[in-house]
Amino acid sequence: MEKREGEVELASDPAKLPADGHVVFIGRVRSPWTSREDCPKNMASARERGVQATIEVAPDYRPGLAGLERVSHVAILTWLDRSARNLIVQKPRHAPRPKGVFALRSPARPNPVGLHVARLVGVDMETGVLTLDAIDVLDGTPVIDIKPYYASTDSVAEATVVRDG
Amino acid sequence: MEKREGEVELASDPAKLPADGHVVFIGRVRSPWTSREDCPKNMASARERGVQATIEVAPDYRPGLAGLERVSHVAILTWLDRSARNLIVQKPRHAPRPKGVFALRSPARPNPVGLHVARLVGVDMETGVLTLDAIDVLDGTPVIDIKPYYASTDSVAEATVVRDG
Repeated sequence: MEKREGEVELASDPAKLPADGHVVFIGRVRSPWTSREDCPKNMASARERGVQATIEVAPDYRPGLAGLERVSHVAILTWLDRSARNLIVQKPRHAPRPKGVFALRSPARPNPVGLHVARLVGVDMETGVLTLDAIDVLDGTPVIDIKPYYASTDSVAEATVVRDG
Repeated sequence: MEKREGEVELASDPAKLPADGHVVFIGRVRSPWTSREDCPKNMASARERGVQATIEVAPDYRPGLAGLERVSHVAILTWLDRSARNLIVQKPRHAPRPKGVFALRSPARPNPVGLHVARLVGVDMETGVLTLDAIDVLDGTPVIDIKPYYASTDSVAEATVVRDG
């Protein structure tokens, strides 16, 4: 993997460290995005494309969807297993200088968990298919959790990020 | 563990299933909450208590905090390792009927990842301490990720949940 100027690797790659805990995949994303070049870089860009996506929940976990039809939006946690885990400081292509991974939404992180807030267009309990307004991950990306989105605790409209340079 | 009426267990407990992926702990929450009875049940309740909390990031991961001082809010992912993982349908104490785990924010889930949106009060790169306005987890809870919160993609003020009964 090519390293950009100012990037820093962890001394111990989390991918090779002993597990502190383990995840199981509860489903997969089905999206139109099959290459990194094609895949929207964030949810804003995904929504702009105006293309829906789905999550296929594995049969054992489908009873866990009961009641989700009452919810307008969900927070989805994905497992971005095609990304490096050892880049603790990164230089995004369009950023003026390197940044710590915890100040970035890069898929390359010590624990490769993606967070995506999407509008829930439909739920089919039988087939375990959730339809979303959009998603910003590659087709086949594993899903580890789905949570109801609560505006009262999850929405902070006044949150700010000071632009770097 | 006591089961309430209508609750359903998974045939295979995710805690005992082979790992599809593994997590490493990047730090720990330090909160005033040392018992479940005391611990706020959600971030709204935690904010009402008006008590700050901190995250102590482990030394190896501290360079990952660079740039976080520009961010007003963070999304924190915790590992709720004191919760059952096999309850796919649950009956919350105050709910009229059981619900699927993916329609609940219960800490008991197939992958015990908690999502908490908090205001970032301070960042100390040297000591790896982040100060938060509030948190709704027990003291010592492991942290697996910290992400900058972007209002543009993470805030959905109009999100709704239809009340059950």
